[in-house]
Amino acid sequence: MYYRPPLDDIRFVLRAFDYEGTVSSMPGFEDFDLDTAMDLLEGYSRFCVDVLQPLNAKGDAEGVRFVPETHEVFLPDGFKEAWAGYCENGFTSLPFDPEYGGLGAPFTLSTLASEILIATNKSLSMCAGLTTGLLDALEAHASEPLKQRFMEKLVSGEWAGTMCLTEPHCGTDLGLLTTRAEPYGDHYKLTGTKTWITFGEHDLTDNIVHLVLARLPGAPSGTRGISTFVVPKYLEDGTRNPVFCGGTDHKMGIHASPTCVMNFEGAEGWLVGEENRGMVSMFTMMNAARLNVGIEGVALAEAAYQAALEFARDRRQGRSLDPAKQDPDHPADIILVHPDVRRMLLEIKATNEALRGLVGWMSMHYDIMHRHPDEATRAKAGDLVALLTPIIKSYGSERGFYNISQAMQVMGGAGYTRDWPVEQYMRDERIAMIYEGTNHVQALDLVGRKLPMGGGRLMRGFAAEITEVIRRNADSELLAPFIAALKTESKRLNETTMAMSAEAMKDHELIGAVASNYLNQFALVTLAYVWVRELEAVVDLPEDDRLRRGKLQTARYFFDLVLPEAAMYAEKVAAGKAAMTEFDAELF
Amino acid sequence: MYYRPPLDDIRFVLRAFDYEGTVSSMPGFEDFDLDTAMDLLEGYSRFCVDVLQPLNAKGDAEGVRFVPETHEVFLPDGFKEAWAGYCENGFTSLPFDPEYGGLGAPFTLSTLASEILIATNKSLSMCAGLTTGLLDALEAHASEPLKQRFMEKLVSGEWAGTMCLTEPHCGTDLGLLTTRAEPYGDHYKLTGTKTWITFGEHDLTDNIVHLVLARLPGAPSGTRGISTFVVPKYLEDGTRNPVFCGGTDHKMGIHASPTCVMNFEGAEGWLVGEENRGMVSMFTMMNAARLNVGIEGVALAEAAYQAALEFARDRRQGRSLDPAKQDPDHPADIILVHPDVRRMLLEIKATNEALRGLVGWMSMHYDIMHRHPDEATRAKAGDLVALLTPIIKSYGSERGFYNISQAMQVMGGAGYTRDWPVEQYMRDERIAMIYEGTNHVQALDLVGRKLPMGGGRLMRGFAAEITEVIRRNADSELLAPFIAALKTESKRLNETTMAMSAEAMKDHELIGAVASNYLNQFALVTLAYVWVRELEAVVDLPEDDRLRRGKLQTARYFFDLVLPEAAMYAEKVAAGKAAMTEFDAELF
Repeated sequence: MYYRPPLDDIRFVLRAFDYEGTVSSMPGFEDFDLDTAMDLLEGYSRFCVDVLQPLNAKGDAEGVRFVPETHEVFLPDGFKEAWAGYCENGFTSLPFDPEYGGLGAPFTLSTLASEILIATNKSLSMCAGLTTGLLDALEAHASEPLKQRFMEKLVSGEWAGTMCLTEPHCGTDLGLLTTRAEPYGDHYKLTGTKTWITFGEHDLTDNIVHLVLARLPGAPSGTRGISTFVVPKYLEDGTRNPVFCGGTDHKMGIHASPTCVMNFEGAEGWLVGEENRGMVSMFTMMNAARLNVGIEGVALAEAAYQAALEFARDRRQGRSLDPAKQDPDHPADIILVHPDVRRMLLEIKATNEALRGLVGWMSMHYDIMHRHPDEATRAKAGDLVALLTPIIKSYGSERGFYNISQAMQVMGGAGYTRDWPVEQYMRDERIAMIYEGTNHVQALDLVGRKLPMGGGRLMRGFAAEITEVIRRNADSELLAPFIAALKTESKRLNETTMAMSAEAMKDHELIGAVASNYLNQFALVTLAYVWVRELEAVVDLPEDDRLRRGKLQTARYFFDLVLPEAAMYAEKVAAGKAAMTEFDAELF
Repeated sequence: MYYRPPLDDIRFVLRAFDYEGTVSSMPGFEDFDLDTAMDLLEGYSRFCVDVLQPLNAKGDAEGVRFVPETHEVFLPDGFKEAWAGYCENGFTSLPFDPEYGGLGAPFTLSTLASEILIATNKSLSMCAGLTTGLLDALEAHASEPLKQRFMEKLVSGEWAGTMCLTEPHCGTDLGLLTTRAEPYGDHYKLTGTKTWITFGEHDLTDNIVHLVLARLPGAPSGTRGISTFVVPKYLEDGTRNPVFCGGTDHKMGIHASPTCVMNFEGAEGWLVGEENRGMVSMFTMMNAARLNVGIEGVALAEAAYQAALEFARDRRQGRSLDPAKQDPDHPADIILVHPDVRRMLLEIKATNEALRGLVGWMSMHYDIMHRHPDEATRAKAGDLVALLTPIIKSYGSERGFYNISQAMQVMGGAGYTRDWPVEQYMRDERIAMIYEGTNHVQALDLVGRKLPMGGGRLMRGFAAEITEVIRRNADSELLAPFIAALKTESKRLNETTMAMSAEAMKDHELIGAVASNYLNQFALVTLAYVWVRELEAVVDLPEDDRLRRGKLQTARYFFDLVLPEAAMYAEKVAAGKAAMTEFDAELF
């Protein structure tokens, strides 16, 4: 209806962060130069817009249907056919090894593609996302026979995947999980209940393959006693494996994405990776999954922005306060002339384009860390991915939700109705701050794990990137105000980091109290860095070039009106923990 | 289920802002001393919790039913009986003149009561709120015969009211409206279409009375040609007046509050107030209505907070990072021990209690401005109400929505499901940032109308209140850090105001660009003032007094972790308009 995939900006991001120099020049990716990549994304976009988008509101209105008697779950009419079309086009196979039927495209492309998939149908994107997550884990950790058995049909999309982690009493704290796996011949039988299982049961595919965290007999308690198993709904001989859906959750949004309680009643499963090392395969899935959650914010904020912009160009209310901007042919001006409407639109545009740039840049590093021939280069890329993934997941989802709310505000009452898609986007997006590790879990990951790693190596690596971009543009008059602000804020971030780290060594509780605010400060500096990288890529274009003007003017809003938030978060971090930890529990 | 009306805090607010000294000591209110007032609120609360709350989720799930053939709208089962009970208890009549069957209670009480009504059933509260708005307008502007004809049945709740302002092509910009009123004997016939009419049609009452903005023949264009009419669904002889519901909107929330398109097809109406002075009666309704919208944020954030707190006291995940706080009897601690969970809860508590205080304080001023025997005192109170009403409406709704989102975040996935009420609160609350004048309209009202009024008289009046509270507590060691911060931030606000006002005189567009950020800076300073007032009221209590500890510890969070946002908004205001107004329209 309103959404046009932002292919121009995606192409720009690929150029600005030197996709051809860093990704498609690597062995195995030679067939995916920039033009080929964009052709691929264009075809993908057409399918998403033509086939998936028309189902989006319908999926929301109808939701999934659970049949308790048979444990079946049905998606709304049309979803099964849409998924079949998605698979026939080979879209599930993009990033996977051609050995298993994959297209072998860079992760960068499938990641950027997922923005379009999510924007057109977030519910259905969950099926693709979970299957990809499972495949990542199998590719990295499964034995060759297991790969042979499962991967091809998952790559083709004939089968779908899930991740079964959470149990009723444990979500964030997986160490508490109790699902058990008992030896049964050369494999295992699993018993236990899993909750919040996305696409745990559905009618899109012939088979569903669950990746399940469980405990072997005698395993240590806590997270060091968790192993990973692969558990198919149907066994090789076609027998139904006893893993049943016990119900679906009724949620605020993503209504066409079934969220299932899954009961494993002695279901047969096969060990993936080593015993008691299940958290490793979980984290393999997590980096990509968390990047993807950040993209959800970008995708739905982009779609909401487009709806709000269309509305703002059409709706006439009030007069411009600048007489020169008044339209004499109408009794009122389009609301796009009003500075506050522009403010709200730019709140979205100035952060969302930077987030897309960050996602693109990180997804390239994801390819580099897996495929680059040089080990040091791989390690360096891995460091950046590890450091910035929690930022993308947490800030991307928080800002995405805020941005969609801004888009609704532009539209007034219309945005609050189902006549426009924005209210659905808002409901669909809200879960992103919660799942795949809540945003605070991301902040703890950043402050408690990523910062101390290697004595601060990750942060030093990122700081070097910032220093380098500042040095490189030191003589640019045009970029001077942006460079100056980046310098100020990265220095402030460095000070915040040092002060916080010094205190945190003596006081672990402090980390919990300040991590969420610290992550936001970090995110804003990261986006400022991304903006400077994007501006670098346009400064040499002719002055009247549309792209150059758009990027410069949008960046100006970011540096004038968004970046001031960084200092505020720094102050909140500096406030420490006392107001929280010394608050008496009974006074809440 | 989870909600307990915050009667203790309401009683505290009444005491802290000297309800007995300022309100119940005024002529006519002698019967409503603090204890009587609290008894009244307790009875009210019981009814809301017992009768209205159980219908809240049901109303959300079922929504209203529109029958196109008959133009009828039906609320979910149970609502009609609940409304009848509400009326039988006399709750609709609280603040109105006993001459028309009202109880004659202070506005303060009905305002504080509405928090509880909204928290238990926001949809139904809309019917009460609109009827009150209509009554306010009739009381202030209608002729005696019209009052006699309409008020008693509206006060008793046998009839309900609406406000018909918006038309398809005009919401914010009422000057564009085209509904016309043509003379018909001693009254008029109205023709036109009104949209977004809350409770425009329903089955709760025998009659529905619409207050309608329309143009008389030959009226000037713009807002100076608008008159107000009262248009009942049924005429005195029982004939159906041709005003029909043409449809209801499908909204993100408040599903049991019908939002109607109303077609006036030559419907008979009577002029309220003077010709072409319709905006005056509209603004009469607006102050109270806008205060009420701010309360919606307080109400639903309180209810969400209670749900989140109950969850946080029960749910066990992870270990406290402070070993001394670990619970040896369980493998995990309640999540309330985690600093970030406390942070999220305190984000709500520290702002919501202050907003409740502000609402209480302003509602007392509302009573004073209407009832105080001394004209100067009335005028001073009126100034404060005029200045702070846009703050309450805008910041109350924005912060309310944010706070509910924080409550959901505490609860993780559970909060995202319909098993808990929080996701409904979030959907129900989001409209508050839009209706009764969007939040930006509030900001324009503050900056463009209220600040310049009387050469800055309103702002000087509020500044004097701040100066006085600082002076009064200059020697308090306990309050020193709070006083110091209030001093700093009120000085900063003053500087922002002066710099902005100087520029705005030369440049009207600037107001539009900075007003929303300015309002938020202003709101934070206002809440800091309210906190100091509340702390003043507890400092002399014994050190271990629960109320004293609670207020001091909660205020500490506000001053340490929320107030730093004020400086950030000041920076955004200082950034001016260029990034918005110089952005080329085609680059969006």
